[in-house]
Amino acid sequence: MKELSAYTELIEKEIEAIDLPLSPDNLYAPLRYFMALGGKRLRPVLTLLGAELFGLEKVKVIKAATAIEVFHNFTLIHDDIMDEAPLRRGKATVHEKWNQNIGILSGDVLFVKAYQLICQQGSEHLAELMELFNRTAIEVCEGQQMDMDFESRSDVTEEEYIEMIRLKTSVLLGCALELGAILANASEQDRKLIYDFGQHIGIAFQIKDDILDLYADPEKFGKQVGGDVISNKKTLLNLKGIALADLSQKEVLKQLSTLDDLELKVTRTKELYEITGARLACEAEMQRHYQFAMTALDQISVNDSQKMMLKGLAAYLMEREV
Amino acid sequence: MKELSAYTELIEKEIEAIDLPLSPDNLYAPLRYFMALGGKRLRPVLTLLGAELFGLEKVKVIKAATAIEVFHNFTLIHDDIMDEAPLRRGKATVHEKWNQNIGILSGDVLFVKAYQLICQQGSEHLAELMELFNRTAIEVCEGQQMDMDFESRSDVTEEEYIEMIRLKTSVLLGCALELGAILANASEQDRKLIYDFGQHIGIAFQIKDDILDLYADPEKFGKQVGGDVISNKKTLLNLKGIALADLSQKEVLKQLSTLDDLELKVTRTKELYEITGARLACEAEMQRHYQFAMTALDQISVNDSQKMMLKGLAAYLMEREV
Repeated sequence: MKELSAYTELIEKEIEAIDLPLSPDNLYAPLRYFMALGGKRLRPVLTLLGAELFGLEKVKVIKAATAIEVFHNFTLIHDDIMDEAPLRRGKATVHEKWNQNIGILSGDVLFVKAYQLICQQGSEHLAELMELFNRTAIEVCEGQQMDMDFESRSDVTEEEYIEMIRLKTSVLLGCALELGAILANASEQDRKLIYDFGQHIGIAFQIKDDILDLYADPEKFGKQVGGDVISNKKTLLNLKGIALADLSQKEVLKQLSTLDDLELKVTRTKELYEITGARLACEAEMQRHYQFAMTALDQISVNDSQKMMLKGLAAYLMEREV
Repeated sequence: MKELSAYTELIEKEIEAIDLPLSPDNLYAPLRYFMALGGKRLRPVLTLLGAELFGLEKVKVIKAATAIEVFHNFTLIHDDIMDEAPLRRGKATVHEKWNQNIGILSGDVLFVKAYQLICQQGSEHLAELMELFNRTAIEVCEGQQMDMDFESRSDVTEEEYIEMIRLKTSVLLGCALELGAILANASEQDRKLIYDFGQHIGIAFQIKDDILDLYADPEKFGKQVGGDVISNKKTLLNLKGIALADLSQKEVLKQLSTLDDLELKVTRTKELYEITGARLACEAEMQRHYQFAMTALDQISVNDSQKMMLKGLAAYLMEREV
């Protein structure tokens, strides 16, 4: 989204300014490397937009915004270890490029850096910022634990899945926005609404991710299409597919999950999700959360004209092809 | 130290009251287990004593004290993974009893719990508490990284070793005391002095640990005597031993490091550390830091009678046999 380039540039500049000393090199070199890998910087942009929505300039909340991005990167470093992921954004993960102990420890330091940035925000609202941030950090860990627990379970419900992505992904979007709102002195009611907006956008965003993983244009997607199907990952598509399949389709899905021909596995599963209506059901669920988000945004007590940027970003996230 | 039982009881009660929900069980059961393993609870007691020294009742700083103990336990859970340690206080470590991913993630949650406790302290000094705590947390990670780096280095100097234990162990003792002092409205100068006292006691404490590991009475020690020698760990004894040995003694030490007969390895190394004067040199270094600590304590602007408890604790830590 071109309109956001001024925002992401501000964030990049602040990320480069994070104090990461030269020694011990094995602790800080991984952090310099990982923070420079890039990414959408969506979460810190939300903090800037959350502040602007309530009339505070974006430069005034830059430390809190950067804290959110730093926290997000800490979770990625530790998640990559847990998932044994070799690549992140097309480059080697920290535990792969260095080793696992360095991944654990440099992740821990990055976590503290997030707290330091929140403190550097130097706000009279420090206690409120901390309370929201602490609660969110715990929820993100709970979501990651649920996700890991799901791997060995065959009875995961759609409700549990949505709760997992709410915790693992969405609360951080809500938190990012609300940090900006707190710093801009938004009312209690408006703070709750902007958090809800972020949370529902987050759920819709994650469902969109699940759909794209299988239905994206391979030319544009940049990574393997069908990765979730190949690894039999529990996603909403998968849960809806099983729920909507008739007996014989259920049997086929079961057989496909153990198929060695991966191309056929992906193609046939994709077809079945179309035939059973699983894809449409996922899109409907995505739309439902998108609408919840819009309703929350509508109720916020500022002029509609000030909401344009957030509306544009939300629409962009739903329509994106990568 | 019997005089401290009222202090440790207060801490234990507060630890039991930490909010650790039932779900996800794989995230919180390890934390309930680990926090109940016990330990000396030395660090939180220091926060209570730091507050009392400046006239504030110990119950008034119980949340900050518990935060320090919770943080310490977080570092133990992650350190145990990095060190591949199967046991902690005679019981299975978290990654051993559950698995490594659970060790990483439950450790992360425990870290947030420490921050929550600091916030629950509900103080006008929150920003100062956070600044000290953040800086200390980063230093502890730096110390752990230095310790890991030392494993593959053969040119570690005594100076570097002391800096490593200062960061890995001592700054947290200084921080624990200073948190109490901040909450008790101690002056800038007194805060610095109590921090220095903690830091030097911490270094002396760690050197005592190194000495005990080889020279403790096996009947009283509770764990294997000579563990550091067996694993060729770089300790101050080891560095002093090499520094003070003549050419032929150096050769013997080198040969001992690869000896398969572990009993002989321990006995002969112990003898050599006596003959070369390495043991005495370590005790002198310990005494030196103990004296630095006493000098700092003497300069603190409160009556000597109020310093008795800290003096007693420091002496106890130096004379302990386990």
